[in-house]
Amino acid sequence: MTQLTGHSIVAGAPLRGTAGTFAGQDPATAQALEPAYSLLDEAQVAQATAAANEAFASFSALAPEPHARFLEQVADNIEAIAPDVVARAMQETGLPAARLTGEVARTTNQLRLFAQVVRQGDHRGVRIDPALPDRTPLPRADIRQRKVPVGPVAVFGASNFPLAFSTAGGDTASALAAGCPVVVKAHNAHPGTAELVGRAVADAVASCGLHPGVFSLVYGPGKVVGQALVTDPVIQAVGFTGSRGGGLALVEAAAARPVPIPVYAEMSSINPTILLDGALAGDVDALATAYLASVTGSSGQLCTAPGLVFVPDGERGDAFVAAAGRAAAAAAGQTMLTDGIARAWQDGVDTLAAQDGVTLLGAGSPGATRNAPAPAVFASAVPTLLSNPVLQAEIFGAASLVVRYADAAELLAAVERLEGQLTVTLHLTEDDQHTATALLPVLERKAGRILANGWPTGVEVGHAMVHGGPFPATSDGRTTSVGTLAIERFLRPVAYQNLPEFLLPEPLRSDNPWHLTRRVDGVLDVTGTEAAEAAR
Amino acid sequence: MTQLTGHSIVAGAPLRGTAGTFAGQDPATAQALEPAYSLLDEAQVAQATAAANEAFASFSALAPEPHARFLEQVADNIEAIAPDVVARAMQETGLPAARLTGEVARTTNQLRLFAQVVRQGDHRGVRIDPALPDRTPLPRADIRQRKVPVGPVAVFGASNFPLAFSTAGGDTASALAAGCPVVVKAHNAHPGTAELVGRAVADAVASCGLHPGVFSLVYGPGKVVGQALVTDPVIQAVGFTGSRGGGLALVEAAAARPVPIPVYAEMSSINPTILLDGALAGDVDALATAYLASVTGSSGQLCTAPGLVFVPDGERGDAFVAAAGRAAAAAAGQTMLTDGIARAWQDGVDTLAAQDGVTLLGAGSPGATRNAPAPAVFASAVPTLLSNPVLQAEIFGAASLVVRYADAAELLAAVERLEGQLTVTLHLTEDDQHTATALLPVLERKAGRILANGWPTGVEVGHAMVHGGPFPATSDGRTTSVGTLAIERFLRPVAYQNLPEFLLPEPLRSDNPWHLTRRVDGVLDVTGTEAAEAAR
Repeated sequence: MTQLTGHSIVAGAPLRGTAGTFAGQDPATAQALEPAYSLLDEAQVAQATAAANEAFASFSALAPEPHARFLEQVADNIEAIAPDVVARAMQETGLPAARLTGEVARTTNQLRLFAQVVRQGDHRGVRIDPALPDRTPLPRADIRQRKVPVGPVAVFGASNFPLAFSTAGGDTASALAAGCPVVVKAHNAHPGTAELVGRAVADAVASCGLHPGVFSLVYGPGKVVGQALVTDPVIQAVGFTGSRGGGLALVEAAAARPVPIPVYAEMSSINPTILLDGALAGDVDALATAYLASVTGSSGQLCTAPGLVFVPDGERGDAFVAAAGRAAAAAAGQTMLTDGIARAWQDGVDTLAAQDGVTLLGAGSPGATRNAPAPAVFASAVPTLLSNPVLQAEIFGAASLVVRYADAAELLAAVERLEGQLTVTLHLTEDDQHTATALLPVLERKAGRILANGWPTGVEVGHAMVHGGPFPATSDGRTTSVGTLAIERFLRPVAYQNLPEFLLPEPLRSDNPWHLTRRVDGVLDVTGTEAAEAAR
Repeated sequence: MTQLTGHSIVAGAPLRGTAGTFAGQDPATAQALEPAYSLLDEAQVAQATAAANEAFASFSALAPEPHARFLEQVADNIEAIAPDVVARAMQETGLPAARLTGEVARTTNQLRLFAQVVRQGDHRGVRIDPALPDRTPLPRADIRQRKVPVGPVAVFGASNFPLAFSTAGGDTASALAAGCPVVVKAHNAHPGTAELVGRAVADAVASCGLHPGVFSLVYGPGKVVGQALVTDPVIQAVGFTGSRGGGLALVEAAAARPVPIPVYAEMSSINPTILLDGALAGDVDALATAYLASVTGSSGQLCTAPGLVFVPDGERGDAFVAAAGRAAAAAAGQTMLTDGIARAWQDGVDTLAAQDGVTLLGAGSPGATRNAPAPAVFASAVPTLLSNPVLQAEIFGAASLVVRYADAAELLAAVERLEGQLTVTLHLTEDDQHTATALLPVLERKAGRILANGWPTGVEVGHAMVHGGPFPATSDGRTTSVGTLAIERFLRPVAYQNLPEFLLPEPLRSDNPWHLTRRVDGVLDVTGTEAAEAAR
């Protein structure tokens, strides 16, 4: 096992915090994990942001090839310590090895995907409107546009993805790919995992010869350090994955700054899944088994777990509900991430169970460890859902609510009243085309991703993915935190008018030294790209 | 002259307001202008938003060709009444005929440019990651992404551009192009102009067979109707051009909603202009004359007027300053838009004149009408600028401040301390390359547009323009309110996973019926576009 220092990494070097210490905990055994971590105070956090500010000028102007190689080096460094990372993350999170091994691969693949994006460069958004000196009544100036990185970014990792949404996860990868230095607030639920990955990033910064301020990892008392980061004038954007309360606190702090900044907070979603009648003509047992697998995977601690399933009244729906009850009864509990999360899950389940018109459909058995409560599936109906907002509250963990609907009209009315979601799923056949077609425009207003005939857990990291959605799924429904579009969160457009060539940034120079796709007078021009040149 | 009704236009029909009346005023004569306008109360405003909500489903799904023709019809309708529009706008704003005639052309050109954007369709951002059923360890689903319109948009027009930034101006044009119904709050400084243009839009909605809720124009007591619009649950985004106070009030109201929405407010900018030493080797009189023309054009009431000019110490700088003083003395006042704006200008000038270390460099003569104060240019130096925030406050109207700097280091320190701006301008020659290169990265963090060897007034409406910038220039520095990129403010991405072809929206169908550019597995594919097909 790589030696852990128990300290923050600020601009490449360990920094011993002066605001006390805390130790991680094995949630399955309540055993404290060595080493204890020292916590930074606000002045120490400011060292990290000051270094990020210093690093910005050179990092934001880095050429594509060294920039991409840096991201690949981060991936290589993480891969090289994968067994240590998985072992430590298992201790800290209670998640199984297979899941964490997959998550390492997802994290490194994500970094390499962003390296491709950096090499290709379409995110730079180059637009050129050439001068028209002879235009009447007025000549047109030469105007060129590109997107520039916004500045240093603060990232708050998630408890439930110690790798893919944490220290070197999607927010960090996309911000670094955009050219923004990053200061990560380590999640206290997996401090050792954070340090291992943080060191992999810092080592890549060093071996690639970049300014050490490009990356820092800070440990601190959560709220104090969080507020310090978000209100630091150096920080220009925030990425966050976590609870609605936590996200909204950051949004509020960011909006109250003398110069407000955007906060991209991925917060809460119950991922409604709609079973239309035709989809229940087949094997309802298989469907119910897949449902419970999606509810209970990673102990239900996935942002996209299906917390609400609409099932039609009638015999087919009855058969599915019975099958779901059996599948729930057969499910076993798995260790949850922290004591606090397990308690919040229990509170949520108790509250839901106490609502009028909500019944327990099936409960499984607890797992062998502590913090491994029995998965539970509840049942209700649309009128109750519409009259009681408790039924739309996210329960983070292995619990779900089946809601029966009388007909398409009642279903549509219920969907209209849903809050914003990360995902909405339809199970359908061609027989359901009429209802599905009526639902689709409503679903588009409610969610960032619409699935058919599947389950929403499992978020592909690609170019077309949207892991986002209207409030309160996220604080900013105009974007995504997964997939290559996520880079746009950390960019802003700048126009350059009549700049002499000697002053133009390289991406905008007429000879196109970075081989970028350019929009010339509104039309895409790929003739300067390496692919186009290779094809000649 | 087309007959004015004096009423709001709600979903295609005149609506008589029940919250009192007000009349426009000729700012040059203080004469009240007929007709008086009836003002809507909040319940009446809700009729407009309800109609917009009803219109959203069909308008957001409109095919490119009828969508583009609608925008062109709006342009045609405005062009057909251009003489009436210019005549009324002259009365209401005091702006000269040539300026307003140009503004009509800019408005109609802008609508036609967005029609081209709609036909081409790149803003739809189609991305397709095809299914990989044989991928290991897990197959990949078929995932497709497009951008959808956010929903109904509220637009608050500007006093200083009664056409190009008002009823059918840039915000409205880009929102309609995105597929969003629009509710415009008419600016009380030009109610008749608003009605003429609003009717041109509503007539186009009707003659194109669109849902009448696609466009409404509402008159009301400013703050009440503004708050009602921004807090209406139907409204999903806001476009605003005006004062910092007005913009921030909308931002605050939007953030306090149960479901917050974005506000795109273009607010305040002093458009710093930096004269480097080499640029003063030539004809300083010509430079000073151009400076004053930019300061005094449209009575200085342009968002991009140069309110702050950095001039080097030394003989060349002295010569420019002397020339600027002469040019200021030769300038004549022109009617300002409203009594309130003229008073605010006078307050701003009086406050600036009273600051220690600020002197009057030159003042012109007042114009022949009321509200036509004498343009004024003041002088100061960097240490005073850095010690007194009053020197960075925008004075809306014909006033400007020359700030002397000792050397490149002092200039850089001053630029570092600037607030966010719409524009920053450099005057330079090759001799200034060293200083300019050091300044550029700082300027990029400060402004949305960087110009060389020109003056910032005159904003080209094209594909590469950025009329935006960091706070407080705008409330959201990630975008622009002028140029085709402005459409992205009113779009959000949605992903579709494994949808059957019969359910896929047309832009995402495999046969690409809208001939869109698509990003397939991350690579741009233009083979399905009409241009590519025509080339075969």
